[in-house]
Order: sequence, then structure tokens, then C-alpha cells
Amino acid sequence: MNLSSDPDRSGQPECSSRHGGGHKATSGVHFTVSVVLPAGGTGERTGLVTPKQFYMFLNRPLISYTIQAFERLSWIQHIVVVVAEESIALMRDIVQRFKHTKVRVVSGGATRHRSIFNGVQALDPGESAATPDVVIIHDAVRPFVEEDFLLEIAMAAKENGASGAIRPLVSTVIATTSEGYLDHSLERGKYRASEMPQGFLYCVIHQAYQKCSEFDFDFGTECLHLALQHTGTRAKLIEGPPTLWKVTYKRDLAAAESIIKETLCRSACVTSDGSKRARELGRCLQNLMASLDMELDVLPEPIGDASRLSKEWNFIKLFVNGSGLSEVEETVKALEAANRALLHPVVVVWVRLDTSDGMSVSETGAGHLPLMELASAAKLKNILLYGILFLLSEEDAGFSEGSVKRLAELTYTLIHDRNALLAGQMLCA
Amino acid sequence: MNLSSDPDRSGQPECSSRHGGGHKATSGVHFTVSVVLPAGGTGERTGLVTPKQFYMFLNRPLISYTIQAFERLSWIQHIVVVVAEESIALMRDIVQRFKHTKVRVVSGGATRHRSIFNGVQALDPGESAATPDVVIIHDAVRPFVEEDFLLEIAMAAKENGASGAIRPLVSTVIATTSEGYLDHSLERGKYRASEMPQGFLYCVIHQAYQKCSEFDFDFGTECLHLALQHTGTRAKLIEGPPTLWKVTYKRDLAAAESIIKETLCRSACVTSDGSKRARELGRCLQNLMASLDMELDVLPEPIGDASRLSKEWNFIKLFVNGSGLSEVEETVKALEAANRALLHPVVVVWVRLDTSDGMSVSETGAGHLPLMELASAAKLKNILLYGILFLLSEEDAGFSEGSVKRLAELTYTLIHDRNALLAGQMLCA
Repeated sequence: MNLSSDPDRSGQPECSSRHGGGHKATSGVHFTVSVVLPAGGTGERTGLVTPKQFYMFLNRPLISYTIQAFERLSWIQHIVVVVAEESIALMRDIVQRFKHTKVRVVSGGATRHRSIFNGVQALDPGESAATPDVVIIHDAVRPFVEEDFLLEIAMAAKENGASGAIRPLVSTVIATTSEGYLDHSLERGKYRASEMPQGFLYCVIHQAYQKCSEFDFDFGTECLHLALQHTGTRAKLIEGPPTLWKVTYKRDLAAAESIIKETLCRSACVTSDGSKRARELGRCLQNLMASLDMELDVLPEPIGDASRLSKEWNFIKLFVNGSGLSEVEETVKALEAANRALLHPVVVVWVRLDTSDGMSVSETGAGHLPLMELASAAKLKNILLYGILFLLSEEDAGFSEGSVKRLAELTYTLIHDRNALLAGQMLCA
Repeated sequence: MNLSSDPDRSGQPECSSRHGGGHKATSGVHFTVSVVLPAGGTGERTGLVTPKQFYMFLNRPLISYTIQAFERLSWIQHIVVVVAEESIALMRDIVQRFKHTKVRVVSGGATRHRSIFNGVQALDPGESAATPDVVIIHDAVRPFVEEDFLLEIAMAAKENGASGAIRPLVSTVIATTSEGYLDHSLERGKYRASEMPQGFLYCVIHQAYQKCSEFDFDFGTECLHLALQHTGTRAKLIEGPPTLWKVTYKRDLAAAESIIKETLCRSACVTSDGSKRARELGRCLQNLMASLDMELDVLPEPIGDASRLSKEWNFIKLFVNGSGLSEVEETVKALEAANRALLHPVVVVWVRLDTSDGMSVSETGAGHLPLMELASAAKLKNILLYGILFLLSEEDAGFSEGSVKRLAELTYTLIHDRNALLAGQMLCA
């Protein structure tokens, strides 16, 4: 529907000035912000049985990633997740399992707009408390939204009553005749794709839905349009990054997984057994991993300090003297105790230098049963343990560039791929 | 530009009836078809240095996959690849390296339309021979186009003068005001995204470019639009599958890789050493792999017949008696001799059953040097060799469901991931 001739475009709704003050100021945002996440989709377009918001990435459903993108921001108060009636138990289970604290689960309506309206209404706590100043509406299947962009959307909504993310069009848009022929093509530069997130003053979105027709509820697609039509609020449009895209097709699942994995392998903590050789190897690895875009912190202590355990996703443990497996076990236990792998699998790579010519393969070979057993137990806690036997041909020589490069690449691929099926394997570099 | 009021829409160009007969009939297509692949993009949107058409997937640039999608079809005559002047040497090298036989490389113009026109002109062999009846224009960065859809496009172009792929819009399209506010949103159901491939009678696309203005050449985006505007040819629009999408952003590289990998792991050929136990294991694997969507052909012979080697991408070789490594080596050599891994890496998984309690780990452990050496040599020929030691705790017992499942999953992940860094590793199931 073309609204460019809408006569009611000039005025902001009456409520738009009510929220000028800053009630609950949190980290620079001097107004209250809550979120509605419609998550009622059926996932038809992915061709999968599981609706895509519940598709698992590294043992966690996509929607939990999206929730986390908001939950970690101190200036976000509540997150209302709207799901189909039959998914409520599943969704509550996800909230509990991944310890989400800001989430309220409500049941959706028959269409997207009815679901969003349910979510908006759930943000009204009744007369005793206030509704949020700004509501951000986002899709459950757009997990990679960043704080700075959310901030822009929230600020623009506060200022203009409504705001929305846009992206340039990737394809030319064309109109078709009823017989399936080209009617005309649109000039690409004048149009944009409307994406999520969108932000609204609470009163704007609430009023828009109260005024809108059954037809709007059933067939409308664009909240920004309803705000313009029913409250005269003209949304500010802000170009977002490409990562805002919506997980829609089966191929998008692979794309999303790759982004998640890349995020998790940006850094690691290396500890050595304190020996000169292990420290030297740590420094060599540090340089090589930097060229693979992984930043390594090298610590001289066999076990990193406790703060490391609560921060890092990835650990590389180097041993020259003795197998070191018992120290690896200590690290795993500490990670378990810190509940470190709640949101993402943690990777521990145990690297054992073998400089002996007559190496004792039975202790370190493929059939390394103690490693396999330790890894099987760790895997139950979402900790992925891999072993690498780093064979050096001459005991006294320095590390050859080729051999350390091979070790670095192997370590990188284990940390990056995070393949649970390979946990417990003893590889050879 | 809105052409719905174009007065010249009724007539087909004069040439449209010239090609009614079937000159060079090939597999049901009774007219000649050639292809123009514009490949001059700079890859800005992926955020990568390498333009995306040259980005490597499993050791092969994306454009080679796209070329192959056309080259394998007997009814496609020539493929003109249009690249920037500075990429001509690289492109010729790709054609040679991957033995493409239908490709002609030509230099592009300053804009997409100038490049496509160069490609169309290159299909005119002069007065001594005929131009193709139909030209298909496709993007170098849409590698997954299937024969049946290309056939539809070619047929519709022959019949209507022009045809093009469309897809439903994923996002609502909106018009913005010059100040960056919402002007209006389009009704999603009335519009489509225009995609590639597109098909044209040679004379239609040639005439359209000859008549079009400098402005069209510099700022136009849509060939279908030029055909309508300058020849009155109204394109038939055909909805294509989601796999037609254009590799545009960095995330699309992961999506494309995942599709390529899934295609390559749909089947494998299992050979056993002829022992009863190995044959039994082969049958167990067959059932389990079917549930992972991989079809296994189990052959009793230690080495599959020669036709297997020329067909399959993946080989699983089971051995109970003796290590079998020498037979694995024979398979690798036969694959090399057949130049089997020219277009895709071939995976060979060597599975060795170990039923001895006091297993000789030194022979089969992580430090299995003969395997590592064989795998290093094979990798140079694009053959990825992995080892799996299948440990059974009791010699006489049948295969437990859990242990065979683990073997199947490990084998599947090696074949699916095709990770060259893990080639030569001896894993443990």
C-alpha cells in the first residue's frame, strides 16, 4: 500500500512527549527499553522439520543466541518471547536450561501481527508499574544484532516515535503481470529492504495495534507501516550491517553456524608446564596463530589463573615433561565447576611434545584410553577435549617452521570446527 | 523506471520467428544455446580481498563450479566468461587447470551491461557461422543452477524472446524520503526479486544493447528491462529454487561451501578384505549411514572395480586381516591414474578392525608414519586419506550398536568435512 499521500503524516501521537525524562537510567540510555521477539515461525523455507528458531547450533537453539544478544545489555529490561501454543513448554525449557533471566514467554496469535501485539501487551504490568518507554521488535532468527546498532534504533525510536533497520536491495525488484510476465522494474536506488530490529515508543506501537483493522492483523507485514497509518508516526530508517540478515533458508543455517564458530575462535589461552621448551613453543604458536586471526595469551603457569577460566572459550596446554594429562583433567574440572560451557562448548587442546626417538607410542597413540575416557566425561559438560602429539625428530634442534606451522593449523582447526565427534582423539602433528 | 505504460509492448522483434526450426538438436533442445557469464565483480560486499568468483572452495574457485554447471549439459555450446582485464590471465589459468572445454574468456567493460554486451558480441563468430538461437546470461557467483531450471529458461526464451528467474521477496520493500524516513511500503505479494539466469533470443539481447543509451550502459541493472524498452519483448518470469541465490556476503561463502560439501557426501563405496567380519561390518555401516543420508554400496572385493573409481567421490575400505595399507595405496594410485580428483577432493577412509586385546599400538597408533606419508603424497593429488582404528573389546562378540554407530559418525564427519588438515591422522572409534 502506498502511503506517500497519507494526510496524517505530520503529527506524532499525543504520548510522544510523555517520556522525555530519564527514569531508570542504565549505561547511558536514559529511558526504559524492552524487547518483543516473535518466534512463532514454522520454518517452511528451510525445508527442515524443526522451526529454525529452535534449530541447534553447537548444542544451543538459535533463539537462545538471539535472546543472549539482548540479555547481555544492561539497558534492556525485559524480553518477551512470543511462541506458538505448542512450543511454550519447549521455550520455557530453553529459558531454564540456558539460564536466561530477562525472558517472559507468552503465547502467540494466528498471525505475525497478532503475535507481536500479544508481546507488546505482555509488557504492560498493570497500573502499579510503568510500561517501557521504548519497545524493540526483533526476529528470533536474526541472532547477530550488535549493541551499537540496537542503541541507534532505540535512540531513534525515542526521538522519532519509530525507527527501523534497512538494507540495500541485493536484487532488482520487479512487478509482474497476472500472466507471469515482466510488467516493470523498480529503480533500485530509490528502494530499500526493510529489516529488523525496529523500535517504537510503547504508546505508538500500542496505539497502532489498537487502531488497526482485522485485515491489517491478518495480512499486514510491516509494523512501521501500521505506525504511519494509524498514529502518523514516520519511522526513521537506519542502514544496518549485513549480519542483520534473517535465517530463512537451509543454507542460512550453515552461514549462521560459521559466524558463531568464527566468533568463538578469536582467542585462546596457552599454558605451558613451565619448561623452557614449552614456553618457547608457546611463543612460536602465538605468532603463527595471529596470522590465522586467533589471539593467544601465553601464560607461564601450568594452569591459568581462575579469571582465565571464567573468560576464555579455548585453552591450549603444552607439556614437555611428563604427559600432563592430570593437569588437563584439573583444568577440565575447574571449567566444569565454573559452569563455563553453559552457552558455548569450551575447547581444550592438550599438546604433548615428544622429543624421544624411541617414543613410547603405547602411552600416546590413537588408543590413548585415559584421554578418550576423560574426553567422554568432559563432553557431557559441553567441554571438548582433543589431544595432539607433537613429534620432533631431533631432540636438541629448535622448532622447525614447518612443524610448528602444522601444529598451529591443526590446533586452529580443532578450536574452530569444535567438532564433538573428534573429542578424545589423539592427533599427530 | 516504470514501463507499464510502454506503448511498444505488443510486438516481438522481427527476428523472433527466424529460429523456429531445430538446427543442432541436442538431447531434446532443438535450438542452439550459449552462455554469457559476467565475472567482473570486485567482491566488495564479502569484505574479502579476493573477488568472490575466485574464492576457493575445496581447492577450486567458485567460478569453476558455475562453469561446470553449464559445461556438463550437452545442449550448451559455448560459455563466454567476461572478466576484468587484470583477471584474464588468472581466468585462463583456471580454464586450463580444471580442463574446461567450452569456455572462451573475454575482457569486460567498465559496467555490468558493457561486460555482458562484450560477451554477447563474442558469441558472433562472423559471417561464416551462425550465432546461437538463445543466449543464457547468468552470474558467475550463482554456482548451483540445475539443468531442469536452465531448460525452462531456455525454452521460455525461445518462445517469448526473453525469460528470467524470479524469487519471492524475503523482506518488505520500502521507499524512503530524502531525509531517511519511511515514505511508503510496497505490497509484498505484487513484487518479485529478479534473479539470474535470464534467457534471450540472440537477436533480442543484441538489438537491445545496440539500441540502448550510454545511461543504460552505465546505470541500468536489468537486462529484461532493456529488452522490453528497446525491443518490446516482454520477458516470461519463472520462479526458481532458493539455491539460485547469489554469493554476495561473507556468510554466503560458508553457505556455498556447505552446499558443495553436502553434495559430495551423498554416497560412498565400501570394500572389505573379503573376510566374514568385514562384510558384516560393511552391512552394519550401510544401515547406519543411510540414516545420515549417505548411501553406501558394499562390494565384497578388496578393491572396487575400475568403474567405481571413475564414479565415486568417497571410498571406505575395511580390513580385519592384516593392516591393508598396501591395498589402500593401490586404490590411491588408481584414483590418481584416473585423474579422479580433478574437480573435487576424493576421500578415502581406511578402517582397520583391531580385535586383539594386546593390540600392537605402535603399528596403528597416532604415530602411524606410513599412513602419514601416504596421505601427504595423496593430498598433493587432491586425495584425502584418513585412518580409523576400530577397537573391539571382545574378539568373538558381534558388533555392538554403539561402537558401530561411533564408527559410522566418525567416518561420516571425515567424508563430509573433507578437512585437508586432518589427512593422514589415525583416529580411534
